[in-house]
Amino acid sequence: MRRLLITGAAGGLGTILREGLAGWADFLRLNDREEMPAAGPNEEVVQGDLTDFDLVKELVKDVDGIVHLGSISRENTFENILDSSFRGTYHVFDAARQAAKPRIVFASSNHAIGFHRREDNLGKDAPYRPDSIYGVSKVYGESLGQYYFDKFGIESVSIRIGSCFPEPVDRRMLATWLSPRDFVEMIKAIYSAPRVGCSMIYGMSDNREQWWDNSHASFLGWRPQDSAERFRAKVEAADPPRHWDDPAVRYHGGAFAAVGHFED
Amino acid sequence: MRRLLITGAAGGLGTILREGLAGWADFLRLNDREEMPAAGPNEEVVQGDLTDFDLVKELVKDVDGIVHLGSISRENTFENILDSSFRGTYHVFDAARQAAKPRIVFASSNHAIGFHRREDNLGKDAPYRPDSIYGVSKVYGESLGQYYFDKFGIESVSIRIGSCFPEPVDRRMLATWLSPRDFVEMIKAIYSAPRVGCSMIYGMSDNREQWWDNSHASFLGWRPQDSAERFRAKVEAADPPRHWDDPAVRYHGGAFAAVGHFED
Amino acid sequence: MRRLLITGAAGGLGTILREGLAGWADFLRLNDREEMPAAGPNEEVVQGDLTDFDLVKELVKDVDGIVHLGSISRENTFENILDSSFRGTYHVFDAARQAAKPRIVFASSNHAIGFHRREDNLGKDAPYRPDSIYGVSKVYGESLGQYYFDKFGIESVSIRIGSCFPEPVDRRMLATWLSPRDFVEMIKAIYSAPRVGCSMIYGMSDNREQWWDNSHASFLGWRPQDSAERFRAKVEAADPPRHWDDPAVRYHGGAFAAVGHFED
Amino acid sequence: MRRLLITGAAGGLGTILREGLAGWADFLRLNDREEMPAAGPNEEVVQGDLTDFDLVKELVKDVDGIVHLGSISRENTFENILDSSFRGTYHVFDAARQAAKPRIVFASSNHAIGFHRREDNLGKDAPYRPDSIYGVSKVYGESLGQYYFDKFGIESVSIRIGSCFPEPVDRRMLATWLSPRDFVEMIKAIYSAPRVGCSMIYGMSDNREQWWDNSHASFLGWRPQDSAERFRAKVEAADPPRHWDDPAVRYHGGAFAAVGHFED
Amino acid sequence: MRRLLITGAAGGLGTILREGLAGWADFLRLNDREEMPAAGPNEEVVQGDLTDFDLVKELVKDVDGIVHLGSISRENTFENILDSSFRGTYHVFDAARQAAKPRIVFASSNHAIGFHRREDNLGKDAPYRPDSIYGVSKVYGESLGQYYFDKFGIESVSIRIGSCFPEPVDRRMLATWLSPRDFVEMIKAIYSAPRVGCSMIYGMSDNREQWWDNSHASFLGWRPQDSAERFRAKVEAADPPRHWDDPAVRYHGGAFAAVGHFED
Amino acid sequence: MRRLLITGAAGGLGTILREGLAGWADFLRLNDREEMPAAGPNEEVVQGDLTDFDLVKELVKDVDGIVHLGSISRENTFENILDSSFRGTYHVFDAARQAAKPRIVFASSNHAIGFHRREDNLGKDAPYRPDSIYGVSKVYGESLGQYYFDKFGIESVSIRIGSCFPEPVDRRMLATWLSPRDFVEMIKAIYSAPRVGCSMIYGMSDNREQWWDNSHASFLGWRPQDSAERFRAKVEAADPPRHWDDPAVRYHGGAFAAVGHFED
Repeated sequence: MRRLLITGAAGGLGTILREGLAGWADFLRLNDREEMPAAGPNEEVVQGDLTDFDLVKELVKDVDGIVHLGSISRENTFENILDSSFRGTYHVFDAARQAAKPRIVFASSNHAIGFHRREDNLGKDAPYRPDSIYGVSKVYGESLGQYYFDKFGIESVSIRIGSCFPEPVDRRMLATWLSPRDFVEMIKAIYSAPRVGCSMIYGMSDNREQWWDNSHASFLGWRPQDSAERFRAKVEAADPPRHWDDPAVRYHGGAFAAVGHFED
Repeated sequence: MRRLLITGAAGGLGTILREGLAGWADFLRLNDREEMPAAGPNEEVVQGDLTDFDLVKELVKDVDGIVHLGSISRENTFENILDSSFRGTYHVFDAARQAAKPRIVFASSNHAIGFHRREDNLGKDAPYRPDSIYGVSKVYGESLGQYYFDKFGIESVSIRIGSCFPEPVDRRMLATWLSPRDFVEMIKAIYSAPRVGCSMIYGMSDNREQWWDNSHASFLGWRPQDSAERFRAKVEAADPPRHWDDPAVRYHGGAFAAVGHFED
Repeated sequence: MRRLLITGAAGGLGTILREGLAGWADFLRLNDREEMPAAGPNEEVVQGDLTDFDLVKELVKDVDGIVHLGSISRENTFENILDSSFRGTYHVFDAARQAAKPRIVFASSNHAIGFHRREDNLGKDAPYRPDSIYGVSKVYGESLGQYYFDKFGIESVSIRIGSCFPEPVDRRMLATWLSPRDFVEMIKAIYSAPRVGCSMIYGMSDNREQWWDNSHASFLGWRPQDSAERFRAKVEAADPPRHWDDPAVRYHGGAFAAVGHFED
Repeated sequence: MRRLLITGAAGGLGTILREGLAGWADFLRLNDREEMPAAGPNEEVVQGDLTDFDLVKELVKDVDGIVHLGSISRENTFENILDSSFRGTYHVFDAARQAAKPRIVFASSNHAIGFHRREDNLGKDAPYRPDSIYGVSKVYGESLGQYYFDKFGIESVSIRIGSCFPEPVDRRMLATWLSPRDFVEMIKAIYSAPRVGCSMIYGMSDNREQWWDNSHASFLGWRPQDSAERFRAKVEAADPPRHWDDPAVRYHGGAFAAVGHFED
Repeated sequence: MRRLLITGAAGGLGTILREGLAGWADFLRLNDREEMPAAGPNEEVVQGDLTDFDLVKELVKDVDGIVHLGSISRENTFENILDSSFRGTYHVFDAARQAAKPRIVFASSNHAIGFHRREDNLGKDAPYRPDSIYGVSKVYGESLGQYYFDKFGIESVSIRIGSCFPEPVDRRMLATWLSPRDFVEMIKAIYSAPRVGCSMIYGMSDNREQWWDNSHASFLGWRPQDSAERFRAKVEAADPPRHWDDPAVRYHGGAFAAVGHFED
Repeated sequence: MRRLLITGAAGGLGTILREGLAGWADFLRLNDREEMPAAGPNEEVVQGDLTDFDLVKELVKDVDGIVHLGSISRENTFENILDSSFRGTYHVFDAARQAAKPRIVFASSNHAIGFHRREDNLGKDAPYRPDSIYGVSKVYGESLGQYYFDKFGIESVSIRIGSCFPEPVDRRMLATWLSPRDFVEMIKAIYSAPRVGCSMIYGMSDNREQWWDNSHASFLGWRPQDSAERFRAKVEAADPPRHWDDPAVRYHGGAFAAVGHFED
């Protein structure tokens, strides 16, 4: 990997990758609309908004891969999501089409399938059941990737990320946690694979509780190494249990599925 | 049906329904951003753009059903589709949520699954393979309907319309044609059904060639009466055949799948 | 068909078959624990309870087929269902095993799958979701038939009957109605088929609204001739509509799924 | 259709097509290793064996379609089937590759799936269960067609023919019969379809008893018009019934599945 | 877990849980119709028959969970199974409904699917194929659990137990063995899970040979630790091999599927 | 295992088994049409061609198992494959039928499903998509095994071998490699299993990248021990990467799918 573009590089996921991929890629090009720490060696830092198509075309120039994290990262107003996630993601894919068609990672989310029930194990063919406008924006992003693959031959992998934090902080994350290390290795695996086509992979570590089945994605060669289990006692002490039929427990999406309309 | 709102009422589909549903609904409320023929008896005509949320809230007031046709009806620039189809469709669903939660028909399209191959019969579980940004906007609309059903209990039916015209005008339409009469009866069936949940139905007549399987939707009680077959000779005379592996023949989406990027 | 045993012959279904199969079978042996009209020509009438195993063994002697309708025909106390439906059905199958292994029709019910939602079309592989103890007794009967086929080579067909009445009397029956004529012809088809193995077939006429898919059973050669549609106006006038999310509308089982515990 | 090659033209199927397609194709080129009636107008008759590759290359020259019927048509010695069906079918496909890649119809057979049980309805994904070496040769032919499509872009349709005779002559054919007229129309439909890819279709008329599901092939626009039902009385009078568990009844393949090794 | 009721506590499975769960639950309430060792600390011992509904209602009072093992544990007369397993299981579920709706574990069995063939791997959607009246009683119990979940919101897990003994004692158990330790941990996992809905899980250890697929149940967080493999030499020395097509080898249910009618 | 016949014993796979199974079987009978090292203790070496049926009948006499490796092991002329693989494999199965019906291992290949795309994980139900005439010969062999099982009760396992070499030598083999040790243990597992029916298993080690899913075959008790991963650096240094859409990367079959017709 010579030059990798990371959008949303100032956020939690972006920070993990900036650290984790340093040295692995020859150059990291880091973009965010927020300010970021200054560029280190082999880094390029470009502040700016993905809603600016000219900027995006500049960002995409000469890169061999794009990890597209830059979007609204949780529920928000429709207008904010429309502007940032819908428009920004289109800009990324279309700029890639106009450039050298680098392989794209799209940071999708379990919230694209958040209204399935916890006891239903989901594989690659689970119907979309978004639990939020945020989740709808992820359905959109995944289908945009399918479109750019089918029509223009741009490879992409949509990662339906569970919960990627330094450690799990509530009971739900005992199942959905994706360790930073496992996330970093997943990105490396995706860019090392001889071919990814247009794929989807669930992003969770080797937790004891598992809701999602990644067997369809075993061609990527990614095998998680971490487990949320060693944090169980701490998490359970801090987060009181809820009733089994509380919507935040009932659904894959947890609290996203349980709350009402964001703008109310 | 007391009062039915039809958006996009000035277009081809809207005109069909305006005529076909007159007398069936007590009142038709007709909206388009284009000018329309003046209101007849039992009609209300409201010109205006669905991007105006206040207008949409007015439109949705007191209606028992919404047939949402109002959006960009073919490929266009991303910004036009974003503005009209993404924003407008959100406005319709969210206004319905704030009102009495009328049953909604969403005019989806075969272009949401347009990159499947002609020889592959598609049922309700066919993965999305949009053939255009237009098709992506239909994936979005269907998943928005799923979201509003799962979280807010708003019923909707997404109709993946084939080709709804007075008669089929090219060879592809011999398979994809939905006669105006069958379309009108489908709308009546949807609003007569005791329950629709959140469903999808393919919109094509009883044509000799069939690409889509509606057996999952037989609970709606709709059975097409027309067939494109009686137009075959005329169509074949007017539209020369293409090679079997021409992309416009290869894919469900026809020419939509065959062309390049709209904005180029 | 020389001699056919019909259990539950005094009930509604039994009366339909007694009339409809006269002349088709050489002899009808009719059993019920209730009194029945006296035997006509080519009829044998045997009153008695299927909980009496010796009686059942007598009934089964020398018959070429058994249509087993004799059980509690709607929700009741557990003890009544246990006694009549569980014990009686076992007696019928085990007596058949000890006799010449006649082909058995088991009158199952849509209430074995009554907790599925109306908008979900069900085929042969639909998971059991009984809506009542009555429905549980039908799951039991179907699995008993499977057992007697796998271990002892007794053929049987479980008919998941919708609503078999002279005409549909409520809105739900517009979808679930099985006309008496179609029911009679189904029985004839089952006994005319060269082989039935251990099969299940849904029992509904060619109604406009369809919830169940019988394509797996097309080898039986049964095609319904009637439709509930001609009764629609009358039914809709007599039976006011309900809210789409009323449990009696939401579920296949209708009111069975909507009510609480029978014994309360 | 300008010029259609029919191999095996002297056999039963070939004779049906020779009559049925006269006038529809501009020229019929008829091949068989047996003698045939002399060429009529718009016919070319070429006697010779498909095991002769040079001959096959001559046959395929300038044709727009090939209906490949020429092979051993029932169980035979392995060596005969190897020579005729395996080698001959390869010659046909490979000659087509070297020529203009005409669309090919391969006369497959229900005996490729003959060891499934009668009560199991089979669609396009039924696993192969050949009931004879003859059936194995059909599996081979279908997979050869898949290979030539995937690697060389030669379209083909494998027809799993039931029983194509002037009328059904035994009880099994009441389900498996393909009327000559329906067969002819199927061939026309295949060559009229804008695209067939590499497909499989079951060949049976609209018989009351149905074992096979052609819904996947509805894109071909073929709908059978005939039914074996009008011959039922005659057939049942002539062919005594068998026990339901007789292997000739138990399996789709009928007697083919019931008999032992041909060479014994 | 404050108070857990175990029915059938005097049997093999019950004894394993009594030992294994001591200390994990605050109180164990132990019931059996047979005599049991006297109550230890934090134990309540209640002898009595589950056919006595008043007793069952007493047993269920104030418990937080029920592990329902109490039934006929192998093939027996129909009347014995009807009385004990059918009636007793109903009493347990219905008493739970009338009480605080504690989470229920139902000890189901592989004999509910015992007539599948050994080479067919079974997951959650395997059709029921009971190999005995005992197996039929397990189908009944599972469907009763589904009913009480769908109508009354009582969570339950049906465990299709393979062979739970101190060690495997015949060749079949090399595949079906569930170690006591794994069984105990499975129970703990079920009661620790935030939600179980109405689920099924296969009960076997991490044996080298595997017939059942538990991937659908990975949300429970149970991972077996033991394997029958270390007993292989001993078992194979003691249990001579059988022919591959011996019914006791052919079927999942082993000897249960191979024997005739219990009452003969 | 008393006496095991290995055909193709002089080839790469044969040599692996000759070494690996020495001592495990009482006697190895080794056949090849090429010369082989002289018989060691407990070995019988029989040179000769499988196209000679009398020879094959001699070979099969008194054996308890047959590992049939003897065929053309890569793409070749149709006539060579027809003679060796089609005829030879028939001879092996039919000689087994005439003898004591020993359990047969058929060395199938991933090239029977070689035209699937790399990103599509394949399980037991993947449709055949052969990438060569060699691959077609494997489809044939697998269906021949099904036929001999269904009609004559001969057990067989088709192993779809990936790449069985001392170590992986190109990038594709990082996914497809089957270590010699794992191959030997797979053969032992197949002959140790109480029953295999007619099964298929993919032959690859526990490589990091996995394209095939063997969960259906877990009843065989085979678990690979090796991984290609330790050879990665060496392989990647020696074999330059290719474009992701190069046919040799795109398809499971690798170069077999990428090349044209062998005889050209």
